This record gives sequence, structure tokens and C-alpha cells, in this order.
Amino acid sequence: MALQARALYDFNSENPGEVSVRESEIVTLFSQQDIDGWFEGVNGKGERGLFPASYVEVLRGDASSAHNNNNSSSSGTSVETHVDSRYANVPSAGTDPSANKANKGDNFSKPNAFNTFALPIQQQPNHAYNSQQSQGSDDDWDDDWDDSSTVADEPVGRYRDYEGNGASTYSLSTAANRGGNAQGKGSATVSRNLNRFSTFVKSGGEAFVLGEASGFVKDGDKICVVMGQYGPEWQENPYPFTCGIDDPTKQTKFKGMKSYISYKLSPTHTQTQVNRRYKHFDWLYARLAEKFPVISVPHIPEKQATGRFEEDFISKRQKGLMWWMNHMTSHPVLARCDVFQHFLTCSSTDEKAWKQGKRKAEKDEMVGANFFLAISPPAAPLDFQEVESKIDGFKTFTKRMDESTLQLNATVNEFARKQISGFKKEYQRVGLSFKILSQAFDMDQEPYSSRLNQAISFTGDAYEAIGEYFAEQPNKDLDPIMDLLGLYQGHLANYPDIIHVQKGALTKVKESQKHVEEGKMDHSQAEGITERCNIISCATLAEIQHFHRIRVRDFKAQMQHHLQQQISFFQKVTSKLEEALQKYDDA
Amino acid sequence: MALQARALYDFNSENPGEVSVRESEIVTLFSQQDIDGWFEGVNGKGERGLFPASYVEVLRGDASSAHNNNNSSSSGTSVETHVDSRYANVPSAGTDPSANKANKGDNFSKPNAFNTFALPIQQQPNHAYNSQQSQGSDDDWDDDWDDSSTVADEPVGRYRDYEGNGASTYSLSTAANRGGNAQGKGSATVSRNLNRFSTFVKSGGEAFVLGEASGFVKDGDKICVVMGQYGPEWQENPYPFTCGIDDPTKQTKFKGMKSYISYKLSPTHTQTQVNRRYKHFDWLYARLAEKFPVISVPHIPEKQATGRFEEDFISKRQKGLMWWMNHMTSHPVLARCDVFQHFLTCSSTDEKAWKQGKRKAEKDEMVGANFFLAISPPAAPLDFQEVESKIDGFKTFTKRMDESTLQLNATVNEFARKQISGFKKEYQRVGLSFKILSQAFDMDQEPYSSRLNQAISFTGDAYEAIGEYFAEQPNKDLDPIMDLLGLYQGHLANYPDIIHVQKGALTKVKESQKHVEEGKMDHSQAEGITERCNIISCATLAEIQHFHRIRVRDFKAQMQHHLQQQISFFQKVTSKLEEALQKYDDA
Repeated sequence: MALQARALYDFNSENPGEVSVRESEIVTLFSQQDIDGWFEGVNGKGERGLFPASYVEVLRGDASSAHNNNNSSSSGTSVETHVDSRYANVPSAGTDPSANKANKGDNFSKPNAFNTFALPIQQQPNHAYNSQQSQGSDDDWDDDWDDSSTVADEPVGRYRDYEGNGASTYSLSTAANRGGNAQGKGSATVSRNLNRFSTFVKSGGEAFVLGEASGFVKDGDKICVVMGQYGPEWQENPYPFTCGIDDPTKQTKFKGMKSYISYKLSPTHTQTQVNRRYKHFDWLYARLAEKFPVISVPHIPEKQATGRFEEDFISKRQKGLMWWMNHMTSHPVLARCDVFQHFLTCSSTDEKAWKQGKRKAEKDEMVGANFFLAISPPAAPLDFQEVESKIDGFKTFTKRMDESTLQLNATVNEFARKQISGFKKEYQRVGLSFKILSQAFDMDQEPYSSRLNQAISFTGDAYEAIGEYFAEQPNKDLDPIMDLLGLYQGHLANYPDIIHVQKGALTKVKESQKHVEEGKMDHSQAEGITERCNIISCATLAEIQHFHRIRVRDFKAQMQHHLQQQISFFQKVTSKLEEALQKYDDA
Repeated sequence: MALQARALYDFNSENPGEVSVRESEIVTLFSQQDIDGWFEGVNGKGERGLFPASYVEVLRGDASSAHNNNNSSSSGTSVETHVDSRYANVPSAGTDPSANKANKGDNFSKPNAFNTFALPIQQQPNHAYNSQQSQGSDDDWDDDWDDSSTVADEPVGRYRDYEGNGASTYSLSTAANRGGNAQGKGSATVSRNLNRFSTFVKSGGEAFVLGEASGFVKDGDKICVVMGQYGPEWQENPYPFTCGIDDPTKQTKFKGMKSYISYKLSPTHTQTQVNRRYKHFDWLYARLAEKFPVISVPHIPEKQATGRFEEDFISKRQKGLMWWMNHMTSHPVLARCDVFQHFLTCSSTDEKAWKQGKRKAEKDEMVGANFFLAISPPAAPLDFQEVESKIDGFKTFTKRMDESTLQLNATVNEFARKQISGFKKEYQRVGLSFKILSQAFDMDQEPYSSRLNQAISFTGDAYEAIGEYFAEQPNKDLDPIMDLLGLYQGHLANYPDIIHVQKGALTKVKESQKHVEEGKMDHSQAEGITERCNIISCATLAEIQHFHRIRVRDFKAQMQHHLQQQISFFQKVTSKLEEALQKYDDA
């Protein structure tokens, strides 16, 4: 049977190569893999061409079992009072589908700077369409994944000189382009953003709410949400641990034909070091993103095809992986999950054990919809109105945080660039002028001035050194801020989907209540939907609470670190100047 | 009898309005005042037009008594190995006159940036031609001299943004233009530089060397040069004093029709305050420059026609006058001279006493050539070869110092501009971004984060304040450097003339020795010339020694001041950051 899909909205072709489709029309696809967010296929009239992948839902096997859930994401309140680029594509209740369509169309052709994020750009696997791809296979495991060119080739230099002001001209635009290329080349993965219309479906949220998920949850796999001071929280990890990432070393295999970087992981709870490569992190990330529908899995540092072995890049990636590991071990659910533990504990030399664990993880049934089965909510159900208000508040918050972190990132980037170029140059020019003056003074033939001339010369050297201090400083106190912001940009990019799942569940509750009123659904069925929506809501709020906790922890620590470094820096400058001043004592 | 002049070199007219003159040709002048360095007159062929004033020597009374001394400045050694703009016009022995001419021609039409100096631009009175003008007169004394527009009208802003690099594009070029304008408008004064070919004559140096100076020197007026550790020195002032300049206040007269700024002078040796206006300083400067041929009279701050009462300008002029006063009171000869003492001590309210002293100073006979009569040299005569070597070394030194101070001035000016604009902006942008982040965080609805948000907000304020610190700093530690450099640029502009007088005297000695060998001069006459050349040489070397002493003193003090200020600045920045860091303690 040919692969078919049903159109969810009208799409009017506007460019050569596109074909129009009408809502509910059945189309035939040439491939289940989209190309840069587009499917190629034949519409009901027999016209062949491209149409947006998110305008259709793929029909698998029995077409009648596909849920026509294109209105699943309606929300009682609308906070879309102004269109922010990141949030512009989240549909709200009662939105004109054609307006949605326009947004989506834009998104396919022109990735918006705000839709991508600053540092760690990571393609998220599309679970519904290409689970095979995201699982990888044992056969190609030995390929050097680090080499796979799903990103643009040019290395990403820090502190570029972007003319103009504001976040839109900042490196984000470059990141956006890179993301675009990646989609074009990779073709196997599609950003979650582009398909968020059906996130509720793809995540398994809908199936779970409708009671279609089934699976056996062992007691040990239970994930508890408890009621804390500020609302639902993930139960804390009773055995907290951390994990260092050190000694990135270059390794070779196939008699030197292939080389890669190996990182040494030191988990505190096992106290046994293991070696892992970037591709292992990448594989793990894919497992986690697939498994946890309402948990914000931290993004791993972006891939880079060329210059992989340059020291700067390795150091930057190591720092990124350390941040990532910190967020993983800090998360009560992620830290304890089997696949992460396998990753942390499996011996680097025991190939067999590794492959066993790998296969087990890839065949894990407790993913997506089934993940929710493992969640054990607090005894008292939540007030959905309160939940809705909290979620909407958080949505507004993430939007503001996204904007302000983008701006801070741009400012800090520019500040770093200025210190490395302009500030350094200014101090060194003054230093040079003092040196030249002291050289001119040295020609005065007056013995009593030689100490002064030496002191002025030393002052010149001091300014030269201070210029160097300025250039060295960003690495110590601005780069870490940018690393932090990059990580949080990743989280902020995750939340629209998470919120979408919760809102989808809430819509189902409202629909079910309406159905009950109309006598179309019996009471117990609606109660089940409400209970399951409660579980999703508890998990979502617990995740939000966790986000705030680590955010406060991280930003506090980073601001303190930054200020401490700045203080040390200015003290170092002061010492240098004091040293210079002393030279005049005997002059 | 018509005013006549004798051509010293061939001049070929190249532009309409000019007339050619041949060497030795007698020309008739329409006025003894040149216009922008040019005389108007009629040449031997009866052609009327312009020719360079420095190409001729004005004949006074008996034409035959004019000395044809255009080769007076020959020097045994030539250090003119490369042409520096300031020194390019100083002729050396055996130079092709046409080459000199070309230099001079250039100089008239295009004032070179290096021929003027950075801050205090002061037109020097031309003693030979317009002593009447430089003396002023009692009749116009009450005119507001401050208003006389001998400078361009636009106020001179600090820290301009000059595109391009190097000293030539720096504000010096503007200063050069201003000088050019000043000559065009003022017409009464000619820069010493333009006429330095006859400085030896005009200064009275030649007349003195040739034994033509006569005057009665009272014992109290004797100026002693003593032999010190490093050569001839001015005898120290046995009654050293300083003089403060405070409280610039706006005064009005003629019922408010005229207004001016009055400065309060507090000399320590009389402990009686007097009030003086800028025009008094200006008048005094003219007297001193006229009186002392081989003393580098410090230049007073430049005139400014508009914005005279703006606070910045008043403060800048006050600082300039304080620097000037410091150099006056530090100079053993200048500090003690009558006209300066009159200026410092005459009661501000006793009009009669002031005018009496003023007239006495303007009729002082001990100026120029006669000044040398007052000098009492050390017992042992100097070795002229050694003197020549010292003078040549000093000439090289001043050239290097001039270049390096120009460069330092340009660098410091640019550094100040960057701190006021760029540095401030960068810190304040970072501050604003922190503020915006704290505002976004304030929307998180989480009570436990409010202290962190406050701390981040405070950090934003701290960066805002640090930006302001950067902008305020140049006034404290860079402006004083520029003031100092400006004052020294003035001194460096004086030295070519001073050196010229000494070299002229030395040439006369060589000529006289030749004349004696040829039997054209008797021995005693030649001995007299040698003795008087010794006096000029002692005075010149004493002045050079004094220059080095105050230079070492001033640059040491200024460098120390600068570094102390910089240290305070960085400590203030550090304190602000420490204050911000503390806010995180309870966050």
C-alpha cells in the first residue's frame, strides 16, 4: 500500500514545484521522510509536487484510525497579543487556519533568527516519522558520527564583528542559517519547532490522555511528583551524584585512518571512570528526547564538521558537555533513568555490554505516551484553572527570558569582542607612546633623568600588559556567561513543545466535558481523561519548578563567578599600575 | 624716505599677484607689516606685487648698515639628515638657496602640522617689525582684549574624532589651520618660525655679538650664569615663590556692556592677592618674549573668541594659566624680572600704579641685545666645540621629544575619547542587559528568586556606574597629561629660535677668526666677539639645563599623578563590583 497522508489544512501553492491540497484531502507520499520540512507527493487531482509536511498527517496502515486532531492545541486564554518570532507559530484557539498557514509557510522558507538559539544547536529527532534513523543501528555504530556533516562546514568563531545593533544581526542569524543547512543536508531529522502542530500527538500525550497507552511499569521505574512548597515537584534523587568530564584526548582507530576525541567521565556515585565520544552523547540525547515528552532535555553542544581537533573547539565542546552533564545529573528524573546510567557506568572496554544496553535502550517501551504511565502524581488533583494560569504565566516568562538572554548574549559577545580588540589596542597604544617618549627622553644626555626614563618605559610596558589582560579576560568571565546562556536558550527552545503537550491535554479535558454534557461520552471515560491530564499537568509543573530551581542556582553561581573574576582582573590591573608607580620613587 | 628692503634670495613669481625679485635687489615696501608672511611692494623693474617677507631684509635709515647675514646660521655639523617638518626650514651651511626657497615657499602657503603645536597656540610678536603693536597702548587698554579675534571662531572641543591614524591627522592639523587664519586676520603679528632666518638679527643677538649693544646695567639687574655639575646653569632664585590662580569670576563694566573673566592671583612671597585678566597675561607674555632672546618663555593658553564664559573653557584656561604660572615662577630669570613682579604685585585697584609700571616695562631698554649685557658668565670660558656638540645634541633631542609628545598627545586624546564614548557605552550596555534580565526574571512568580533578581539588577546598576566612572576619568588623569604636553610643545616651538641665535653668534666667531687670519680685523675686536659669544652660549646652555630640570620634574610628577589617579579609578571600580558581589550572598 502506498504511503498516504491526510491534509489537515488548505495549502495553496505559491511557487513552482508546490501543489495545492485541500483540508481532509488524501495525498500519496513518495517518502515518509520530509525534505527541509516539505513532503513530495501527489494530491487528489493527480498533481505532483511539494507541500508542507506539517500540513498533513501521515496515515499508517488503517487510515481510519488516524486521529483528526488538528485543533488539539486550542487554549482557553490567548497570550499571543503580539507576535514574537519564537512564539508566533504556537496556535491558539480560534485562530484562522489560513493565518496559521502563512506563519508556517514563512517558517519553512525563512528560518527566523529567534526560532533558533545561540550556542548549542541540536537537531531533534522526529519521533513519529523516523524513529529508525534516530535509533541508529549497530551496523553503522562504528562510523565516525562526529564526522557526519549535518552542520555547515565553517568553524564558528566567537566575537564576530556584526555591524548594526540588536539581537537580529547577532550571530543568531548565522545560527539560523546553519540550522537551515542542517535540515537540508541531514534530511533525516526535523526540528521539533517545525512540527509542533502535532507535538501533542507525536509526543504520545494525546494517546496517553485518551487512555490508549499501555505498558507495565515496574515499581522501581515509578517517577514520583510530590507536592512541594511552590507546587508539584519531582521527587528528589535520593542518591545525588555529579560527573566530571576531563582529559579530552585524540584517539585513532583503523590504523590511524579514523580519529576522534575521547572524554573521560568520572561519575561520583560509581567512582569508576569511563571514556565516551561525542557520538555517544549524541545517541544518548536522542534516546532522552524521545523518551521524555514533558522534560526539557538539555541540548548537547553543536556539531562541527571541520576543525574538530583544534584546541579551542575541543575546549569549548568540553565546557559545553560539562554544562550538559551538570544539568543531567541535577535533574531528578533524567539523572536516574536507565539509558543515562548505562551511558555513565558501562565499561568502555566491554563492547558486548555496551551493545546490549544500547539495544535495550532503543527498544525501551516506556517512551512517549508510556512514559506518562510511570508518573505517580500527588494524592490531591490539581485545579486546572490554576494550572492554566501558571502555564500561561510561564509561557510569558520564557518569552521574556528568551528575549533578555538573547540580548545579554549579544551584548556580552560584543563586550568580549571590544575587550579583545579595541580595549587592548587602546591600552597598548598608550603603552607604546610612553615607550617612545622614554626613548626620546633617553637622548637628553642628562644622567639625572635616566631613572625617570626607565620608569616611563616600565609604565609603557605596564600598559602593554594591561592591554593583554583585557584581551585575556573574556575567556574567564564572559565566555562562561555565554555558555550558560547557550544552554538556557536550548531549554527555552524546548518549552513551547512541553507547554503544547500540556495544553493539548487540557483541551481534551474540555472536549470530554462537553461530550459528557452532550451525552456523547460516559462519565467514567471523561474522569479518566481528567485524571491523566492531571498527571501530565503535574509533570509539566514539576518540570517548570525544576527549571526555575536550576535557573536560580545557575545564574546566581555564574553572576558570582563573573563578578569575582572581574574583581580579580581589576585588582591585577591595579597591582600592575602600583608596580609602575613605585618605579618613580627614586626617579 | 620710502621703506626699502634688500632681497636676500632670488624669488620667482609663480602665481598672479606675485613679483619676482633677485638677490641683493632693493625693493620698496608699501608697509613694514607683512600680510600672512608676504610683503607688498615694487621691485627694481617697477613691477608691483607680493613677495615672501623672509626673502628680504628691511632697511632702516642707512641702507649700508644692514648686515647681509643670511648665511649666519651655518653649523659645523649637519644633523639635517632627514627633513622633519619642524626643522626643515632651519638652513644649514652650504645649502642651496633655491632649495631653501622652495621650503620657505611651501611654508607660506601650507602651514605644516608639525610647525605648530598642540594646545596653547600663541602668536609671537615680531619685535623688529611691529613693536608698537606688541606694546599695546594706554588708549586701547580698556578694550576687551579677550575679544580680539586673532583666532578662529569655533570653540576647540577636546577628543575630536579624527579619522585616520598618526599625528598628521590629529588636531594639530586643525591647530595649523587656526594659526594660518590668525595670521590672515591679525596681520599685526608674524610667527617667529616664518622669520627665523633673521632671528639672530631681530633678537639683538647679532648686534650684541658685534659689540653694538650699549646700556647701563644696575648691579641688582645682573643675571648670573654659574657653572654647575652638568654645565652652565642660571643662578637659583634665592627667594623662590609660587603663585596660585583661583576663582575665575565673571566681571562686568560699562554698566554690563562688557564682561570679562578675572582670576585671583596669590603669590606666596607677598601674600597679597591681585586680580588679573587674560589680557594682562597676554600683555606680560609679549613683554617677556621681547625682552629675553634665549629664554623659552612659556606660552599662555590660546585665545578663544566665542564661548569665553562657558565653564569648560574657563576651567581649561585656568588650568593652562596655572601651568604657565608654575613655569614662570620656576624660572630663575623670568621669576625675578621687573615686569613679572609688577604683574604679580601691583594692586588691582591702583590704576595709576599699574599704568606707571606698564609704561616703564614698555620702555625697558634692557631688551633684546641689551639683555645680554646683564648676563654675568662663569669665570672660565666655554669650549665652543663642546658647546656646538651640546647644542646639536639638544636640537636632535627636541626633535625627538617633539615627535614623541605629539604622538603621545594624539594617543592620549584618542584614549580619552574612547573612554568617554566607547568604554562607557560598552559597560553601560552590559549593565542595561543585566537590568533587562533581572526584569524578565521578576516575572517568574517564584518568591525564592527575588533576592537574586535584586542582585542582578544591582549588578546592572554597578556596570552603569562603572561606565560613568570611565567617562569621568580622562578629566582626572589624561587631561593633565595633555595640558603638560601642550605646555612643552610651546617650549619646543621656542627652541629653534634660541638655537638659531646661539648658532648665529658662533658663526660670527668663526668669521672673525677668518678675518683676523686675513688681517681684516684686529685681534682685540675678535676677542670681544668671542667673549660675547661665550655669554650667549652660557645663557643658552643654562636655559637648556633649566629646560631639562623642569622637564624631569614635571614629567615625573605628572606620570605619578596619572598612575595614582588610574589606581584610584580601578580601585573604585573594584569596590563597586565587590558591592555588587555581596548582594548575592543571601540570594
